[in-house]
Amino acid sequence: MRDVAVVGVGMNKWGELWEKDLRDLYVEAALLAIKDAGVDHVDSMYVGCMTSGLFNCQEHLGSLMADYLGVNPIPATRVESACASGGIAVRMGFMEVAGGFSDIVLVGGVEKMTDVSGDGATFALATACDQEWEAYNGITFPGLYAMMARAHMAKYGTKREHLAMVAVKNHENGFHNPNAQYRMKVTVEEVINSTKVAEPLNILDCSPITDGAAAIILTTVENAKKLGKPIIRIIGSGQATGTIALHSRADLAAIDATRFAADKAYKMAGKSPKDIQFAEVHDCFTIAELLIMEELGFVERGKSGPAVEAGETKVGGRIPINTSGGLKSKGHPVGATGVAQIIALVEQFRGEKGVCQVKGAKVGLTQNMGGSGGSSVVHILEAMS
Amino acid sequence: MRDVAVVGVGMNKWGELWEKDLRDLYVEAALLAIKDAGVDHVDSMYVGCMTSGLFNCQEHLGSLMADYLGVNPIPATRVESACASGGIAVRMGFMEVAGGFSDIVLVGGVEKMTDVSGDGATFALATACDQEWEAYNGITFPGLYAMMARAHMAKYGTKREHLAMVAVKNHENGFHNPNAQYRMKVTVEEVINSTKVAEPLNILDCSPITDGAAAIILTTVENAKKLGKPIIRIIGSGQATGTIALHSRADLAAIDATRFAADKAYKMAGKSPKDIQFAEVHDCFTIAELLIMEELGFVERGKSGPAVEAGETKVGGRIPINTSGGLKSKGHPVGATGVAQIIALVEQFRGEKGVCQVKGAKVGLTQNMGGSGGSSVVHILEAMS
Repeated sequence: MRDVAVVGVGMNKWGELWEKDLRDLYVEAALLAIKDAGVDHVDSMYVGCMTSGLFNCQEHLGSLMADYLGVNPIPATRVESACASGGIAVRMGFMEVAGGFSDIVLVGGVEKMTDVSGDGATFALATACDQEWEAYNGITFPGLYAMMARAHMAKYGTKREHLAMVAVKNHENGFHNPNAQYRMKVTVEEVINSTKVAEPLNILDCSPITDGAAAIILTTVENAKKLGKPIIRIIGSGQATGTIALHSRADLAAIDATRFAADKAYKMAGKSPKDIQFAEVHDCFTIAELLIMEELGFVERGKSGPAVEAGETKVGGRIPINTSGGLKSKGHPVGATGVAQIIALVEQFRGEKGVCQVKGAKVGLTQNMGGSGGSSVVHILEAMS
Repeated sequence: MRDVAVVGVGMNKWGELWEKDLRDLYVEAALLAIKDAGVDHVDSMYVGCMTSGLFNCQEHLGSLMADYLGVNPIPATRVESACASGGIAVRMGFMEVAGGFSDIVLVGGVEKMTDVSGDGATFALATACDQEWEAYNGITFPGLYAMMARAHMAKYGTKREHLAMVAVKNHENGFHNPNAQYRMKVTVEEVINSTKVAEPLNILDCSPITDGAAAIILTTVENAKKLGKPIIRIIGSGQATGTIALHSRADLAAIDATRFAADKAYKMAGKSPKDIQFAEVHDCFTIAELLIMEELGFVERGKSGPAVEAGETKVGGRIPINTSGGLKSKGHPVGATGVAQIIALVEQFRGEKGVCQVKGAKVGLTQNMGGSGGSSVVHILEAMS
């Protein structure tokens, strides 16, 4: 298996981008990544996207994006795993380079969510849960995560304020990210008093509806050296599934797929949770970040709330989480999220993060997941000195 | 790169399967393939599916299918490339085994098309073409392929009867396939006099709307030997893209993506068109089979019609095509089609095809494509004696 490096990154400023359609978003991010890498071609490409069929009446994204990027006839494959589509696209690209099938692979993720027709964004997103047993009966994602929050609060004594503190921290970080959708700081009080969505989650506990794309270029470490780029290796990749429906879980306050994916990634990388200096995780709702911290082994089970309260996950803390602003502040164009998490790590390794810089950043982790945790993918990256 | 073998196959009897939903179809085919292979587990799985979001209000198929098959937490990835989703899922599974990432991979394809709500199947399928420049303006797939047929007829003198002969041949083959949706023979006159869809294509020139799934088990040749299975190797895999919209093509009577994909597969396999004994190709419309025969190098450009008329592609002919009945008679549950093409080859290699058996079948080819040819994937399989 060949060593794989990330040599280029690119993304749009995310938000409600009325002047850009699905293909514009992808192509823009892809061109930025290609330019950043300094490559003159790519051998293959992936498109992570959840539900362009429902959002944009457009499938067949591999063909569409290769065409508009002007790179056909190269192979182009669209990968879908709900909100983990981007992270799993990264894994596919990683395997294609590591396995020796292609030398330079473009991995992009995209979602154009704001000008949805038909039954709207909530309906489209609900296709990530079990349609027949969950969505059809009226549950939505805030409702599912609200149940997980209630379970965690009941089992471990997690407080309402702990949830809010996740939003406060991520908005604090996103405030400094020029590509973030919501660059405003919020307070615990503002989160707790914001519009109710699904008890105990309010609007400021939820990630937003976002248009955006993100892209990276993967190649061999050998090629990366020739390109004169800093060597940022993908040293671990793990992917796993869990039950798609929440009612099938033994424990509503656990996300098994994330734990299994992390175990595989740690094993492949030869690292343990204590080796991870910082992470980007899938905070689609504030409760998700708490659950994930526990599954990744950053804190003991049930101790995530107090760890956030103690500032352990802030920049400068023991294990900074979502220094990019996370899904909460940066935005959550679902197919792009997992790819943008890799970009956030690369920016840290390159020392570009200003006040959000993790000093001496060498080893970071990304965790991306689909639905209420029915799929999850974890990557561990290391910057070579 | 490790050698990869197909050790198990399974599919449903395709058709209008009102009593089975999307997950039932996939799980049924997957269990048949697992049983056929004689394996007690799988390490990873893929789901080829085009547009379950629009057909079934359900995305996140990796998680859903792993869950209902009872195999989580293994990685499960959904791949989409319109009607080439299944073939590209096969390629992903092939790369995962060949690259040494997993030893036993399940690749399934599925589409549940008949109980679509909303704007219907024609609308859902049109998301495979360029939504903004083609579908939005009212074109449908029969219309796109009708233009390709007209171009081929004008350029090469291909006759209306040649198109009909493709349907006649494929229904003759499908008549003998117990899993085929439309097991009736048709005549040239019946095709020509059937209901008009888009001049010159009639209803009997078009593949049907189908519910169905197909699944295969891939593993290393080393493992296949241990399982005591006949060794059927994937010796070539090629994938390519073309322009998604028909109006961007230099020649409406060519499908570049298929030619590029075939070139790669031939090169990898160390084979040329004359080494191929039989093939399963993507006859979504009768004209498609003619175009594909030329792109695969089975006949000279413009000579596909006369070759079909001369019986060269019949069972017993020079290069039998679609001995399973093809999309036309067997049915076309779009995400499943590319996987079922592999099954059709395996059945030939195993000598199970009765009156449709290709004598001494050792080397076969599959060609699967998306939209009007915006993506294409070709596999070459060889049975080891």
